[in-house]
Amino acid sequence: VSEEAASTPEPTGPSIDGLENVDGLTVSKEGKIFKITLNRPKKFNALTLDMYKGIQKALEVSNQDKSTSITVIAANGPYFCSGNDLTNFKAAAGGTKEQVAEMANTAKVVLHDYVDAYIKHEKPLIGLINGPAVGIAVTVLGMFDYVIATDKSSFHTPFAPLGQSPEGASSYTFPLIMGSLRASELLLVCKKISANTAKDYGLINEVVPDNEFEAQSQKAIESFSQLPPESLRINKTLLRSFHKDQLLKVNDMECDLIAERWQSKECHQAIAAFIMKGSKK
Amino acid sequence: VSEEAASTPEPTGPSIDGLENVDGLTVSKEGKIFKITLNRPKKFNALTLDMYKGIQKALEVSNQDKSTSITVIAANGPYFCSGNDLTNFKAAAGGTKEQVAEMANTAKVVLHDYVDAYIKHEKPLIGLINGPAVGIAVTVLGMFDYVIATDKSSFHTPFAPLGQSPEGASSYTFPLIMGSLRASELLLVCKKISANTAKDYGLINEVVPDNEFEAQSQKAIESFSQLPPESLRINKTLLRSFHKDQLLKVNDMECDLIAERWQSKECHQAIAAFIMKGSKK
Amino acid sequence: VSEEAASTPEPTGPSIDGLENVDGLTVSKEGKIFKITLNRPKKFNALTLDMYKGIQKALEVSNQDKSTSITVIAANGPYFCSGNDLTNFKAAAGGTKEQVAEMANTAKVVLHDYVDAYIKHEKPLIGLINGPAVGIAVTVLGMFDYVIATDKSSFHTPFAPLGQSPEGASSYTFPLIMGSLRASELLLVCKKISANTAKDYGLINEVVPDNEFEAQSQKAIESFSQLPPESLRINKTLLRSFHKDQLLKVNDMECDLIAERWQSKECHQAIAAFIMKGSKK
Repeated sequence: VSEEAASTPEPTGPSIDGLENVDGLTVSKEGKIFKITLNRPKKFNALTLDMYKGIQKALEVSNQDKSTSITVIAANGPYFCSGNDLTNFKAAAGGTKEQVAEMANTAKVVLHDYVDAYIKHEKPLIGLINGPAVGIAVTVLGMFDYVIATDKSSFHTPFAPLGQSPEGASSYTFPLIMGSLRASELLLVCKKISANTAKDYGLINEVVPDNEFEAQSQKAIESFSQLPPESLRINKTLLRSFHKDQLLKVNDMECDLIAERWQSKECHQAIAAFIMKGSKK
Repeated sequence: VSEEAASTPEPTGPSIDGLENVDGLTVSKEGKIFKITLNRPKKFNALTLDMYKGIQKALEVSNQDKSTSITVIAANGPYFCSGNDLTNFKAAAGGTKEQVAEMANTAKVVLHDYVDAYIKHEKPLIGLINGPAVGIAVTVLGMFDYVIATDKSSFHTPFAPLGQSPEGASSYTFPLIMGSLRASELLLVCKKISANTAKDYGLINEVVPDNEFEAQSQKAIESFSQLPPESLRINKTLLRSFHKDQLLKVNDMECDLIAERWQSKECHQAIAAFIMKGSKK
Repeated sequence: VSEEAASTPEPTGPSIDGLENVDGLTVSKEGKIFKITLNRPKKFNALTLDMYKGIQKALEVSNQDKSTSITVIAANGPYFCSGNDLTNFKAAAGGTKEQVAEMANTAKVVLHDYVDAYIKHEKPLIGLINGPAVGIAVTVLGMFDYVIATDKSSFHTPFAPLGQSPEGASSYTFPLIMGSLRASELLLVCKKISANTAKDYGLINEVVPDNEFEAQSQKAIESFSQLPPESLRINKTLLRSFHKDQLLKVNDMECDLIAERWQSKECHQAIAAFIMKGSKK
């Protein structure tokens, strides 16, 4: 990693103690900012199991890092994140019942630990949403502290159409954030919403015109990162304390349920239809 | 019920196993949709004790019905529902203390079981609000999953002016949905709000121009009803699970309190004044 | 207190049983309205320890007063309230560790009892926000029932920049009112918001043009005060009951934490810088 790399606008940076390189992920420190960037633009930043584990590890390392005061999650390319990489499921679709069960239980543990890392994060967590966000990339937003999105972004959690159930602790956080009817609109009947609606619903804080997104995001995170770091950590911990136990419990329940759903007929039929549709294009 | 009736736009339909006819109520199945329609337009769909029991029973039958995937509550006429039929109280107003107490306790049980049926409902519950909604017709909206309203609708819960207390679990659901200050605006100082304000407050999901209301409502419920039914039921159950025990407890408390209020001087004076005002018009 | 004073628009009034005069505070009864007015306009209504205790006592007296049905908190001058009077801290800044600890523990008890009085208040609590509100004047709004603000008001809780932590039970009420991301926007990264944003966030109910503020506020509180008083008190008590124990516990936690923060290096540095900045102007 060179000094030159640090001067480009791309979020590459010096390697960080305790973190291995993961395909599709860039982790960097920029001043007081610990930054995790989804970097698999050709696949719309769909999350592989390695990327889940890499983000989890990066959140844990940032938690311990005293040289930075906030954590930022951003992405490269036209999408923020298209959610869970369904190719995992594709492999499973042709497998035996036992193979599907094994796949489901492996993925469940990865998902569980991924979401736990958000629940246990102690720094302000800032999201920079540069384009459409889908599934798990939307549901975990309920555990962020400040989210800025381009007006080209959208938010979609198509659980029911895919025969799946909500994760990311969203079945608990979304009703608290936006009320039960809006939460059902997203998580139950699964409507896709625009950036402006997401702002109205309190799921994000700010919508910025696409051509100003990078400059305004950078300005905001630099400003937040200058606040007294101990206060940030202590105040975040206070705010989280009233919900932490329940969030951990909800994550357990959601992961148990989704592992069941991954083995259900409705889910297999829905994913087969989805992949078929994709392959016809 | 005739075949002819089924071909009109009115939501009549074939009789349903386990359900008796109730004056002022029409229950039907339309494809994957289980539909309950308030049908007492000359009385602005005010709820008689029989209508409470009929809706409760219909919600229970829909819960058991595997042939439909969602439950819809709609209404005929210019009003959605003017709330509790005050003629019950009118009779009581002239009675002895014991007669009033008996009336209050009978009504309390009916109200309690009515609200419990909403709490225990397992299908997505969709509300189509065709006009003004008052009292209990507003408070139970906190247990719906998606509500579409015409721009001619309004929402009013005049508990304090009538010497009464909130029901429908609203003292718990409204603060969660819209925050405590907006909840107090509705439930404590009892301001009437427009459809657009109800949307801003997250009490409803969508406001539609009156002349497009029927077509857009129909399109929405047909679309929702096509989602995988097992996923809908499982995901609704997950979302409800974090609040169900508390909702049941709140309903108990609210019913105990309102039965006391119905026997209070403030309530009798307020209702007498209300009926007097009505009879002078 | 003279008859003349009572005829001016200023909220002075007859002295009230059980209340002593407090500099910077006017307490009055106007019809069915119990009114507490911040009256230290030259200091932007910054709260001295005596004012905290005076407001607490007034809330308690109003609680017991059967001749009024609602409690109103208003203010004189261009500001609603600039928050905690930092001169207390200024004195402490030069003191020994023991003196700072003593100051922190004294202030903690005053703050604790002040916030408890809001939690235990049984009448509808109405806020009339005539200008900027800062710190504790903002955080306690989560325990009001209806708030009207002029369009010249703003809302700011600069805890982190001052090395402090949230109080007024806001770490619990704000996420419930506006969702966790907006709560973090205010309480964690500490953005100042306008009256219109505060209304969007459900922290206040109504924004009124500044030149209409006095007339419209007066009209609203007179209207609310005419509602049946027993119903108001019973319904407020019901709404509060689901949160009261948690609010008391949160207040305890917040007060313990802020007393620690007042003794922290980050806090002392931030306040010194703030006072330095002020003295250079």
